[in-house]
Amino acid sequence: MQLGIDDASFIRGQVPMTKQEIRILVLVKAAIPPNGIVFDIGAGTGSLSVEAARLAPEGHVYALERKEEACGLIRQNAVKFDVTNLTVVPVEAPEGIDGLPDCDAVLIGGSGGHLTSILDAVTPKLRLDGHIVVTCITVQTLHRAIAYFRQSAEYTYDACSVQVSRLRPVGPYDMMQAENPVFIITAKKER
Amino acid sequence: MQLGIDDASFIRGQVPMTKQEIRILVLVKAAIPPNGIVFDIGAGTGSLSVEAARLAPEGHVYALERKEEACGLIRQNAVKFDVTNLTVVPVEAPEGIDGLPDCDAVLIGGSGGHLTSILDAVTPKLRLDGHIVVTCITVQTLHRAIAYFRQSAEYTYDACSVQVSRLRPVGPYDMMQAENPVFIITAKKER
Amino acid sequence: MQLGIDDASFIRGQVPMTKQEIRILVLVKAAIPPNGIVFDIGAGTGSLSVEAARLAPEGHVYALERKEEACGLIRQNAVKFDVTNLTVVPVEAPEGIDGLPDCDAVLIGGSGGHLTSILDAVTPKLRLDGHIVVTCITVQTLHRAIAYFRQSAEYTYDACSVQVSRLRPVGPYDMMQAENPVFIITAKKER
Amino acid sequence: MQLGIDDASFIRGQVPMTKQEIRILVLVKAAIPPNGIVFDIGAGTGSLSVEAARLAPEGHVYALERKEEACGLIRQNAVKFDVTNLTVVPVEAPEGIDGLPDCDAVLIGGSGGHLTSILDAVTPKLRLDGHIVVTCITVQTLHRAIAYFRQSAEYTYDACSVQVSRLRPVGPYDMMQAENPVFIITAKKER
Repeated sequence: MQLGIDDASFIRGQVPMTKQEIRILVLVKAAIPPNGIVFDIGAGTGSLSVEAARLAPEGHVYALERKEEACGLIRQNAVKFDVTNLTVVPVEAPEGIDGLPDCDAVLIGGSGGHLTSILDAVTPKLRLDGHIVVTCITVQTLHRAIAYFRQSAEYTYDACSVQVSRLRPVGPYDMMQAENPVFIITAKKER
Repeated sequence: MQLGIDDASFIRGQVPMTKQEIRILVLVKAAIPPNGIVFDIGAGTGSLSVEAARLAPEGHVYALERKEEACGLIRQNAVKFDVTNLTVVPVEAPEGIDGLPDCDAVLIGGSGGHLTSILDAVTPKLRLDGHIVVTCITVQTLHRAIAYFRQSAEYTYDACSVQVSRLRPVGPYDMMQAENPVFIITAKKER
Repeated sequence: MQLGIDDASFIRGQVPMTKQEIRILVLVKAAIPPNGIVFDIGAGTGSLSVEAARLAPEGHVYALERKEEACGLIRQNAVKFDVTNLTVVPVEAPEGIDGLPDCDAVLIGGSGGHLTSILDAVTPKLRLDGHIVVTCITVQTLHRAIAYFRQSAEYTYDACSVQVSRLRPVGPYDMMQAENPVFIITAKKER
Repeated sequence: MQLGIDDASFIRGQVPMTKQEIRILVLVKAAIPPNGIVFDIGAGTGSLSVEAARLAPEGHVYALERKEEACGLIRQNAVKFDVTNLTVVPVEAPEGIDGLPDCDAVLIGGSGGHLTSILDAVTPKLRLDGHIVVTCITVQTLHRAIAYFRQSAEYTYDACSVQVSRLRPVGPYDMMQAENPVFIITAKKER
C-alpha cells in the first residue's frame, strides 16, 4: 500500500502539518477510489494531498491553500514524492471551488472561519456516496461541522476524537509525549 | 482503497475485536506489500486478517488463533468478505510458526503471555525490511515488547498510544464515549 | 483533607455518577471556602454535593435535582457520610434558583438543555470572585458553556478536557480501561 | 480549601513541574492528614511540597531533591507561599531517607532510576494506612512501580493514567492542546 509516509519525509517549513496517524485515518475514512477526484481544502504542507494523489493514481487532487509559503511547500512535496496528478489552487476557499470538477472526496483541514460556506460550496460538487472528512482542533469548528451535518438532508455523519501519544526513547526510558487531540468528522453524501 | 471496513460489518460473537481506527493504523504501519505474506497472531475475529488479505491480493495471510470459537469466526468473516488467500492455523503461538513460510509482516494482537517466544520464533521468518506490529492494552505486554526490541540487534522500533473517543449522537447531543487506549509498537527488521 | 471519597463508597443505584478524579478536580477548581454556600445543579447521586458539604462544614450545599430517584440517593448519601449541611431541592433548574441565598460556588453537572438560563439565573446569586464549574460530556454543552462565558462581561474562564484510564489488574496483567473524557469549564466572576 | 495553586504562581526556572490537575490528584490521593509527615521525593520546583505543606499545617514536609538549582527553587517557592513547615533535603534518594522521621505519605515524582531502592527505603518509615503516590511518564517506571506493589505483601495499589488537554483561546476559537499523559500509582500500606 502506498499510504503511510513518515512525517519527517515531508518538506514542511513553519507550516503546521497533520501528523501521520491522523493523516492515515483521514485518508482511509475518505474512501478515495483509484480514479477519484479529491479536494484538499486548507492543504497546508500538502501532506494529505500527496498521499491522496498516490491513492488515486488515475484520479486528481486539487489542493486549495491561501498561504503562498504553503503553496510552495505543496509543490515541493509533490515533486519530492513524484506526484503529478496534483494541482495547487492558491485561493482562500470557498473561493475557487466553483471552477473545479465534480469530486469523490473532500478533505477539510483548514477552513479559515468559512466552514459553512465551504460545505455549501462543495456539496453540489460531491458525487453520491462521496465523503467529506473534516479534521479540527477547536471547539467552535467541531461544533459547526456537527451542526452542519446534523441539519443537512444530504449527509449522514460520524465523528471521533483521536489522541496519540508517542513513546520517545530517552536513555533507558520510553517517555509518553502527547500530540494534540484531533476531531475527525466523516460525512457521507446519501442523496 | 480496500482498507477501512466498518466494525459492525464483521461477524464477531463474544470475541473481542480491534476497533476500526486501530485496525487501520496497524495495517498501514505493517506496510504490507500486494504480494505479502502476513502472520496475524492472536487473530481473534479475523478482522485484521481479512483486511490484510485484501491488501495483499497476490499474497497470503496466516491467522493463528488458539480458541476454537474464534477460528470459526475468522472462517466466517473470510467467506463474508470473499477472501480466499487466508489460512486459519488453530494453534497457540509460538506453536505452528515453524511450519509457516517466510513473511513480510507480523501482526501480534494477542500473545497469551508468550510474547518473547513468539518474537523469537517469527524473527528468523521475517524478511529484511519487514515489520512487526504489536498492539497491546496492558502495562506488562507493552513493557515486554519495548524491552524486546530495545535489546535486539535486528530491529528498530517506534511506539505510540492511541486513544479514540467516539461522538455518539443522543437526541440533540453528541456524547464523547471513550474506547480503551491501545499501544502500538512497530518494529522494522533492519538486518 | 476530607476530599477524595472512593466511588464505590457512594450509594448510586442506576444514576450516573461523576468519577473520583473528576470530582476532585471540580471541587478544587470551585475553590469552596469553609463557610461557603454551594449550588450543585443536576446533582445526580449527590457525590459532589456530599464532598462539597464536607469542604464547607460551616457553609451549606443546595443540591438541585429533577429526578425523584436521584433525590432519594442524595439524601441517603448525606446520611451515610453524616453530612447535615445539605438540602435537596427537587426541581428542574433554573426553577428553584430564585429562592436560594447568594452563593460562593456553583457546580453544574447536568443542565437538561437549560444551561444558558441556568447561568443567567445563578449569575446574580454568585458572589464576586465566586466560581462556576461546568462539567460536560457533549459537544453541544461544551460549546454553549464556552460561548456563554466568552460573551459575558462578568466572567473569565478556563477549560480543559480530562481523560482518565484506569489500570485494572487481570491476573498477571494491568489492563488500561478508559473512562469517558470530561470537559471542565471553570468561570470566575470578576465583576 | 488550600489546594489548587495555579501553575503560573510557582517560581520554576527551567525545572519541569507537575501540572495543576495532576498535582491536585496526587495530593488528594496521598490523603495527607493535617498533622502529617510527608516525603516529596524528586521534588523539582517544590510545587507539590508547597501544597502538601499547606495541607499539613501541623505537620512537616521533607523535599528530597538532588539538583542544586531545583533546591533553590523549592526554597523560593516556600518563601513565596509563606510555608515554614518544609525542609529541603539536597540528596539523591534513597540517600537521606534513613535520617528522616516516620511519615504518613510519600510522593515520588522523580526517582532517578532508583525507584526500587527508594521504595525499599521508605517502606519501614511509612505508617500503617499511609500512602505512597508515584507519578511517572515512562513505560519503564510505570512497569517497575506496578511490579513492586504487585509482589509486595505490605501494599495494595491502584493506578490510572490521566491525560489533560487545555482549551486555549486563540481569537474566536478554543484550541485543544494536549499535556503529556501521567500515570499515577497509589499504594496503601496495609500491614
